[in-house]
Amino acid sequence: MPKALITTVPFGDKNKLPLELLEAAGIEYLINPIGRKLKEDELAEMVSDFDVLIAGTEPITEKVMSCASKLKLISRVGIGLDSVDLLAAERRNIKVSYTPDAPAPAVAELTIGLILTLLRSVHIANTQIHRGDWNRYFGRRIPEVTIGIIGSGRIGGRVLRRLSGFGSPRILVNDLHPDMKLAPELKIEWVGKEEIYRLADVISLHVPLTIHTKNMIRRKHLMQMKSDAMIINTSRGGIINELDLAEVMNEGHLSGAAIDVFEQEPYTGELAQIDRCLLTAHMGSMSVDCRTRMEIEATEEAVRFLTGQALQGRAPPEEYDVQRQGL
Amino acid sequence: MPKALITTVPFGDKNKLPLELLEAAGIEYLINPIGRKLKEDELAEMVSDFDVLIAGTEPITEKVMSCASKLKLISRVGIGLDSVDLLAAERRNIKVSYTPDAPAPAVAELTIGLILTLLRSVHIANTQIHRGDWNRYFGRRIPEVTIGIIGSGRIGGRVLRRLSGFGSPRILVNDLHPDMKLAPELKIEWVGKEEIYRLADVISLHVPLTIHTKNMIRRKHLMQMKSDAMIINTSRGGIINELDLAEVMNEGHLSGAAIDVFEQEPYTGELAQIDRCLLTAHMGSMSVDCRTRMEIEATEEAVRFLTGQALQGRAPPEEYDVQRQGL
Repeated sequence: MPKALITTVPFGDKNKLPLELLEAAGIEYLINPIGRKLKEDELAEMVSDFDVLIAGTEPITEKVMSCASKLKLISRVGIGLDSVDLLAAERRNIKVSYTPDAPAPAVAELTIGLILTLLRSVHIANTQIHRGDWNRYFGRRIPEVTIGIIGSGRIGGRVLRRLSGFGSPRILVNDLHPDMKLAPELKIEWVGKEEIYRLADVISLHVPLTIHTKNMIRRKHLMQMKSDAMIINTSRGGIINELDLAEVMNEGHLSGAAIDVFEQEPYTGELAQIDRCLLTAHMGSMSVDCRTRMEIEATEEAVRFLTGQALQGRAPPEEYDVQRQGL
Repeated sequence: MPKALITTVPFGDKNKLPLELLEAAGIEYLINPIGRKLKEDELAEMVSDFDVLIAGTEPITEKVMSCASKLKLISRVGIGLDSVDLLAAERRNIKVSYTPDAPAPAVAELTIGLILTLLRSVHIANTQIHRGDWNRYFGRRIPEVTIGIIGSGRIGGRVLRRLSGFGSPRILVNDLHPDMKLAPELKIEWVGKEEIYRLADVISLHVPLTIHTKNMIRRKHLMQMKSDAMIINTSRGGIINELDLAEVMNEGHLSGAAIDVFEQEPYTGELAQIDRCLLTAHMGSMSVDCRTRMEIEATEEAVRFLTGQALQGRAPPEEYDVQRQGL
């Protein structure tokens, strides 16, 4: 009987269909018994007996794969393959699939909520009133500010389209491959990252984690930003250097930050001491509909593989090329 | 030299133009020296010497006016005349003006931010991470839920138009005077308030405070709502009974509430003990652009009056009719 290890949690929580699909196909499964994102060693110990991984963002490294002699498919629940050593998988003939479209609407909608929250200091007022303090903060509306988007793919593009309902802010966008047809109602200015750092009031990141984006925003980039700029990261932990961000904010730089993704999760670092840092628990894709869709798509891929059907969600060659440049 | 008392604070803070307009017209002014919303007695003691009030939401009662023998104009910075005894003003031949359009875009945008925050439990995750806890909350996206809007005037109408950028949620709207042309792209269902209480996942209030809306939502109405419903009040304090709201939430009813306006401000009540209550400090209109526009419009009205020009922002007869039914 083929066996699947489901490492991402929660799984099958709001909708049982993914588990029913596995059962109907006669696939035995185990859901991550530790109940949080696994560390490399924990996964390596757990993985030996499984044919398929239905995976979250835990590290699926050479070492993990060396402990997984039966493993033939890694089916990622979500987008982002930075956690998977694709070249090691290729050498071992382990196939890799993912669900890149499913999380995008949920991440984009959360991002808009975070932008509005930062712009009006909602999180600060909330914290203060719960502590017994009352301060009325001035804010800015979206049409009053310059918004900088780095990465205009599946998620960044959706953020831009949702922004168009709020009037006409100045929009600066950076992408390796500008799509001139994106959101024509917005009059996008395609610019370099440095211009976004210098000119934007609100900067939101929607890039994958690669050797080029890891620590992309360090102290020197943060210091190029306006002293009252706001930065949002719902993409991957480590793209903004967390220690540098905490340091400049403790010095009084930046008026706000909203961070949903961290290098180490659960996060317990210095940003949690800063009231104007709005922190969420890697919840970008965690809407019931998108999460369900991600789980179903990743499970269907596992079932297809184990029942001898063609895969539909293989990671494309460009993802391997990115990692050939270094991880 | 004519004298204006500015009771609303902050005033002229982000933009000095309102103060410059007064100075250019030779009008002496005093800005509320207490620095917070005045109580009736405080205002009564302060008001005797002034020709014009440039007013916030503090109570401008019969008693206050009886201490204000020179007062000839109340120029409200904002919308909502519940704080002004219009009939007493009428008897004393004190004119009343307001700026009903200026705050609407800011209140509507904040409301969308509060909806998104509640739907994704952003405020709860933020509070917990700052305390050292990490929980990934499931949320819902706007197109997945039924949204109920009570009051579809200047602000409610703008909330509806901004919602249309997020896909197609089911939208239930209650208004005394349904506008069938409002946001046709949304397929609005015009319903009674009770249907909104029973059916909506997210309920947002955009009504004035009158004898009919004061305590409009009490325990029995809250209990008609779904156990995981969310309620938002950016209109006026007291429309939802605060004690009843805290009571039902302490019993586990409702999955969230966002309250920007309170019966007593600064607010220090029981809701501040409830993590899933998102609380802001009457900041609906506090975007720099809208607040500036409100201050300028109210000041221009004061200047027009004191320099013998016709008023442009008089409170309409319907506002007096509402108060004739009781305050």
